[in-house]
Amino acid sequence: MYYFLIKNFQNLISNAQTEKNRKARKIALEILESTLKASNPKNLVKKQIHLNGSLLKIGSFTINLDDYDRIYIIGAGKASGTMAEAINELLQKRITNGFVNIPQGTTQDLKTGHIKLNEAGHPLPDKAGVKGARSIMKLLEDVKENDLIISLISGGGSALLPLPAGNITLTEMQRMTNKLLKCGAKIDEINIVRKHISDIKGGRLAMKVFPATLISLIISDVVGDHLPSIASGLTVPDPSTYSDAVEILKRYCIWEKSPQTVRLYLNDGLEGKAPESPKPNNPYFKKVHNILLGSNRTALKAAKIKATQLRLTSIVLSAFMEGEARHVGTVIASLARETVLTESFLPKPIVVLAGGETTVTVIGNGKGGRNQELALGASLRINELEGVVIASIGTDGIDGSTDAAGALVDGTTVKRAQEKGMNPLDYLDNNDSYTFFMNINDLIMTGPTGMNINDLIILVSV
Amino acid sequence: MYYFLIKNFQNLISNAQTEKNRKARKIALEILESTLKASNPKNLVKKQIHLNGSLLKIGSFTINLDDYDRIYIIGAGKASGTMAEAINELLQKRITNGFVNIPQGTTQDLKTGHIKLNEAGHPLPDKAGVKGARSIMKLLEDVKENDLIISLISGGGSALLPLPAGNITLTEMQRMTNKLLKCGAKIDEINIVRKHISDIKGGRLAMKVFPATLISLIISDVVGDHLPSIASGLTVPDPSTYSDAVEILKRYCIWEKSPQTVRLYLNDGLEGKAPESPKPNNPYFKKVHNILLGSNRTALKAAKIKATQLRLTSIVLSAFMEGEARHVGTVIASLARETVLTESFLPKPIVVLAGGETTVTVIGNGKGGRNQELALGASLRINELEGVVIASIGTDGIDGSTDAAGALVDGTTVKRAQEKGMNPLDYLDNNDSYTFFMNINDLIMTGPTGMNINDLIILVSV
Repeated sequence: MYYFLIKNFQNLISNAQTEKNRKARKIALEILESTLKASNPKNLVKKQIHLNGSLLKIGSFTINLDDYDRIYIIGAGKASGTMAEAINELLQKRITNGFVNIPQGTTQDLKTGHIKLNEAGHPLPDKAGVKGARSIMKLLEDVKENDLIISLISGGGSALLPLPAGNITLTEMQRMTNKLLKCGAKIDEINIVRKHISDIKGGRLAMKVFPATLISLIISDVVGDHLPSIASGLTVPDPSTYSDAVEILKRYCIWEKSPQTVRLYLNDGLEGKAPESPKPNNPYFKKVHNILLGSNRTALKAAKIKATQLRLTSIVLSAFMEGEARHVGTVIASLARETVLTESFLPKPIVVLAGGETTVTVIGNGKGGRNQELALGASLRINELEGVVIASIGTDGIDGSTDAAGALVDGTTVKRAQEKGMNPLDYLDNNDSYTFFMNINDLIMTGPTGMNINDLIILVSV
Repeated sequence: MYYFLIKNFQNLISNAQTEKNRKARKIALEILESTLKASNPKNLVKKQIHLNGSLLKIGSFTINLDDYDRIYIIGAGKASGTMAEAINELLQKRITNGFVNIPQGTTQDLKTGHIKLNEAGHPLPDKAGVKGARSIMKLLEDVKENDLIISLISGGGSALLPLPAGNITLTEMQRMTNKLLKCGAKIDEINIVRKHISDIKGGRLAMKVFPATLISLIISDVVGDHLPSIASGLTVPDPSTYSDAVEILKRYCIWEKSPQTVRLYLNDGLEGKAPESPKPNNPYFKKVHNILLGSNRTALKAAKIKATQLRLTSIVLSAFMEGEARHVGTVIASLARETVLTESFLPKPIVVLAGGETTVTVIGNGKGGRNQELALGASLRINELEGVVIASIGTDGIDGSTDAAGALVDGTTVKRAQEKGMNPLDYLDNNDSYTFFMNINDLIMTGPTGMNINDLIILVSV
């Protein structure tokens, strides 16, 4: 029997009210299903990394494994366990040793040979995370010029691999993380601070690898795939400085409230008494190869390929889709309304795709996520359209704080909701998209997928 | 010397900070300029209506003018004066008589021969409007089977052609219009009420033409070009009923507050004592030909043609673009960010177009319009991008309550604003986009264009 990543695949199709809607739902779900499969970390490794005798090829980059005495695998992130399994299958006995931090409860039955998986806390760093970070640093202590280190980095790696600098304690680092998350700072700004109170982030992990060779395989969970931003750029040169970090804390008025150890350490940094993170021109990076293995873009490419296999015209709008979720939904609905016209600028059948990460300004006290809210917003503007489906999912399978990946809407969504006594606008106002879609059985359920390459939005018009 | 519709065309180009931005600005403005020219009501008439001997051809529709004894021209709307001039040029002495209501102060030096232009109030109907409506009804009183009536309908025609039904006075109709505009009812709902307290709207004008032949030339200012919604569907069958009208007034709690004459008339309607608006199956419509002469879609087509002439790939997203202006701007910016990548799904050079009508939820007390606010929202997300321009304009040349048609942004907008001491977010929060763009000289100025086919959004990336 075929195993669906989208667990309620068949139910979502049978939920269609008309033959055309059924067809559109089937296409949307087949493309999402196929995209999630292709974007699985294991598939990303298998597709892009090949071993030919002793030659390891990653895209246009090739090295001869026989040139190296030992091969160590390190890493951290939500997808890094599955990456480790794939690397282990590929390199097997060539791997000397390995240590990778992954989230609590995700080891499952991954077979990783010599690579030890260590479960750690996320999104708040914990003791297990620190222990894992120390184990990795210890592993790297005696590396020599002829050793090869492969690091497996993915979203979540920043929290999963904590190593407080100076006299900063784990508890103090947790408090800082909390303050930063709540003060309104952008993720890039948070990372700049993180990189300057850590002994491992902001390229410091790569420094530790010197004089060995480092291949860092990275799966991006950051819109735009800016390498220094993914998992606080563990293996990537860091353009930011202690001065930037202090400025950010002062700008968001949390400098005074920061633990004394943090302020002392940052002051040391300002005075040149604490080591600055390595900068882009640092010669140590000559033997460091940061390779982006997968991202939202990878998923969009896979989606486009699947649409082509289904003999459908497709267009990808952007891998940078951002903005307030419900309004992005309105815009996607505007495109949907265009497709159904006789003389359309986007003639059907057509598949429109976009990726990125929208935001939700929470006002109500309902349950939901950005993907479900986007779909709910879109449903209001495609009411009564025939053969049109819009769906949005988080590739991690966890939209907001819910157990759904996202939701799917068509021209019957509003009517079916009203029949159940629900006013879609009320649910939107209360940020209660989860309850809304649960009641009409149009949640998309995958369970946790073990990856996170942001969100996918799909519009299908047949 | 070449005459620019966009008066500050050259200034906007010289405002560019780099050669690539200059190029992108030039393309964006050339396309907008050319689109406005092509979408002028006079051009729409000239391009689509041809007289060959006595044969009048409008698209695939042809009639022989020699079959008709008399030709009358009637109509109302913001663009109807210019339409009248074009029709007069075409038919000249064949026109027996004509009467068209247009907004105050827009007669200018239009040459319309036998067609009398009558200036009337807008957006609130006035006495001059009623007088004009009566003149048109009088003109139609003695029409015979072998007469031809050509009506020229465009946006604003609803307010410009008032004819209160029953004992309803003009003042009462004005009060009703005000109440409806303020109660939160949608424009379609407002029109349903309007159609049932009027002797001329909702297809009643077409009824009056019977047994003559009616050709109604319509320029749409309604997103989606739904004919019954344009100018309250003067010549179009009306699916709505007295019962719908009463229900809407009750739903928005203004039934009790409505003038007694209005309630009496609507009650008469409910009891079959007042004439219902003609329905789609009404046999009188057999000799009525409603022809959509132009719309936002026409403009988008013209824009696409111009892009092709400039040898640029172009894509039109939708003629239904709706939603909160600043967020639509964010989405367009998401597309802009995609275009500048090496491996882009929307490889540059590219032109992305959209049309429709966004909305602004006013919170601040600044000065602005939906197009300027869309551009301001977009500017925040294209900061520092090179060779990217986003512009948005209202085709009527009057964005919001300002004298600008819209505004243009590029990757230097934020920086140039900051240099003048302006924080873009503050201006967005205060709905003060006009002041923002005036200070950095990036307003697009056309003056009133004498047409209204909604808004145009353009993204150019070179």
